[in-house]
Amino acid sequence: MKNFKDTVLDLHKENIGKLDVLPNIEIENKDDLSIAYTPGVAIPCMEIFNDKSKAYEYTMKGKTVAIITDGSAVLGLGKIGPEASLPVMEGKSCLLYRFAKIQAIPIAVNSFDPDEIIKVAKLIAPNFSAIMLEDISAPNCVEIEETLQRDLDIPIFHDDQHGTAIVVSAALINALKLVNKSIENIKIVVTGSGAAGSAIIKLLNKLGAKDIWNFNSSGVIRKSNYNHYNKLVKRLIDDKLIVSNHDHAELSEIVKDADVFIGVSAKNILSEAMVNSMNKDAIVFALANPDPEIDPLLAKRAGAKVVGTGRSDYPNQINNVLVFPGLMKGTILSRAKSITDDMKILACKTLASLVKDSDISEEHILPDIFDERVPEIISEAIVKANKKD
Amino acid sequence: MKNFKDTVLDLHKENIGKLDVLPNIEIENKDDLSIAYTPGVAIPCMEIFNDKSKAYEYTMKGKTVAIITDGSAVLGLGKIGPEASLPVMEGKSCLLYRFAKIQAIPIAVNSFDPDEIIKVAKLIAPNFSAIMLEDISAPNCVEIEETLQRDLDIPIFHDDQHGTAIVVSAALINALKLVNKSIENIKIVVTGSGAAGSAIIKLLNKLGAKDIWNFNSSGVIRKSNYNHYNKLVKRLIDDKLIVSNHDHAELSEIVKDADVFIGVSAKNILSEAMVNSMNKDAIVFALANPDPEIDPLLAKRAGAKVVGTGRSDYPNQINNVLVFPGLMKGTILSRAKSITDDMKILACKTLASLVKDSDISEEHILPDIFDERVPEIISEAIVKANKKD
Repeated sequence: MKNFKDTVLDLHKENIGKLDVLPNIEIENKDDLSIAYTPGVAIPCMEIFNDKSKAYEYTMKGKTVAIITDGSAVLGLGKIGPEASLPVMEGKSCLLYRFAKIQAIPIAVNSFDPDEIIKVAKLIAPNFSAIMLEDISAPNCVEIEETLQRDLDIPIFHDDQHGTAIVVSAALINALKLVNKSIENIKIVVTGSGAAGSAIIKLLNKLGAKDIWNFNSSGVIRKSNYNHYNKLVKRLIDDKLIVSNHDHAELSEIVKDADVFIGVSAKNILSEAMVNSMNKDAIVFALANPDPEIDPLLAKRAGAKVVGTGRSDYPNQINNVLVFPGLMKGTILSRAKSITDDMKILACKTLASLVKDSDISEEHILPDIFDERVPEIISEAIVKANKKD
Repeated sequence: MKNFKDTVLDLHKENIGKLDVLPNIEIENKDDLSIAYTPGVAIPCMEIFNDKSKAYEYTMKGKTVAIITDGSAVLGLGKIGPEASLPVMEGKSCLLYRFAKIQAIPIAVNSFDPDEIIKVAKLIAPNFSAIMLEDISAPNCVEIEETLQRDLDIPIFHDDQHGTAIVVSAALINALKLVNKSIENIKIVVTGSGAAGSAIIKLLNKLGAKDIWNFNSSGVIRKSNYNHYNKLVKRLIDDKLIVSNHDHAELSEIVKDADVFIGVSAKNILSEAMVNSMNKDAIVFALANPDPEIDPLLAKRAGAKVVGTGRSDYPNQINNVLVFPGLMKGTILSRAKSITDDMKILACKTLASLVKDSDISEEHILPDIFDERVPEIISEAIVKANKKD
């Protein structure tokens, strides 16, 4: 039998990558040519010249997303560069099509300079309905996203930030129902303050959380260390999104009495003793990939009530694929010019609502990632909300 | 019955443009996901990280061309901008696939500044096997092409220059056989000195032509006007590719006694009287589109022996589609890093050879554009030649 490595490489080799760019029309004679190419093609050209928005009707712009990366933070592999990131970008495009029939073109940019990525994205924007930023390292990813969304009239979505924040928040909403706690009254510890960590903290604040602590490889985030932090972390402090006026340095100190642990950081940083020190009915989302912050079985043994990971081989897989296909589809169908906080919160609450309260259990807080309703219903909710506005 | 305009617009609307970007793999369960996406996808990523050339095997880079434009010189429509150029770029991609099974992604750049187009092309180059420049106005197109070919290790091809030059030269080779003249001994007049005109003049020189005259909207090109010309025209004079040491100003003066007229300029600039003043067995290629430099029937009536146009509704259609699919296919299959003059000459002579000498006639100097042999045999010739090197 073929081993896993050969199976994977053969799949990638068979058709030279996982995507094809194909005509959807036939050209079999000169009449066909005159309709699809000269002289006929001049007609849609001039329609678009007179009204740019017609490009959404007559060209692939109307259905195509750019997936832009610099290959600076690819999966758990790190800064592997544009060429090496392509299999992931193609995979993302496959997921977008598989779950929402949205088409996407990978664009791996040959520069780690955020200004150059911004420049490329702006210059190629006319070809696309939306831009997804992918696997770009923090804090650059946030600057790139915000600049592009300010300057372009198509939606920009950075899944590593917002997709993660939305799916984690939806999981938390349902887990809190199970343990009968309210988000306003709980203590939350987030480990990691990069793209995912800071976006999770922002969204949890918008959902009503008031007592969030943050920890990263430099220790517990606190005001007294302010000058050592990057822009992202400084902003969490400036905007009062986390508790920062304290002197704790160790993770163990802040995890004590916490109701919720959310890890988007590094493997094995959460011990059984720490979980054991958490409040009753503790919720532990250990999302580092492929090795979580704590083995979910150990977390359970140490007393956690609900445990989630990013992995498919444990219960409660918390995976962005539950979010971005439906959210992108709804955004594109409604021709939104940006993805607002309200749209993110709607996607989050819609996703959470797809597990009925009576069906929520310790091992079932989110729908299965192959649940076909998910992208459809999220997309419909977004379209409906955007119609109202 | 539907009119032509509605037929064309409906075709472009039906599937939102003429291209689709689709997965060529199935994702139906968690095993599929683990092969096409995490964790399996890390395997090809790291193979490419360790050897960039593996991107040609494991990703769409190995089969995908970028078609880059700024929308500054689209067909006969002019400077219509990036969005409005997209139907043409998608059409070009359809042709490339239809005739050579090569896949291509349109990238319309939102800037007319050649430095910005160069910047975008360089930054997105990791995604592609080759770059085709398309419908970029002269003289920028030449600067862009030369800079990119100097700085990138993938082939750059500007069809409006070289595709046109190759197909026109192939047509001329066969027309000269018919009239029994040698390219070294004939007088050639080229009207137009933009992308197409200057590339035609360069290639005809390489094929042995020694007496080429050039005319554009400023009159006959001559040394005494040197300072009024753009870089492209100055270079034709500097490199002694045209006869420039003279005082003729009018087209009629230089067409007199010419053996060959090649127009890539503007409609109706060639009169019957001018054709009548040409040498015996005159060859007239009136390629302005959609309205040629002279109506082919009038050219015939005025005594031209062989008349060709860009149009499909007259004999002797001289169309780039006879060249670029096969040339791009051969270039990509042989992983050439550039398209050399030798490869262009080979494509030209191979194309000409596809009409047997005994089959050449006044109305048949080139193969039909739907002749399936053409791209195949040109591609094979290129691959074979590149193997030898």
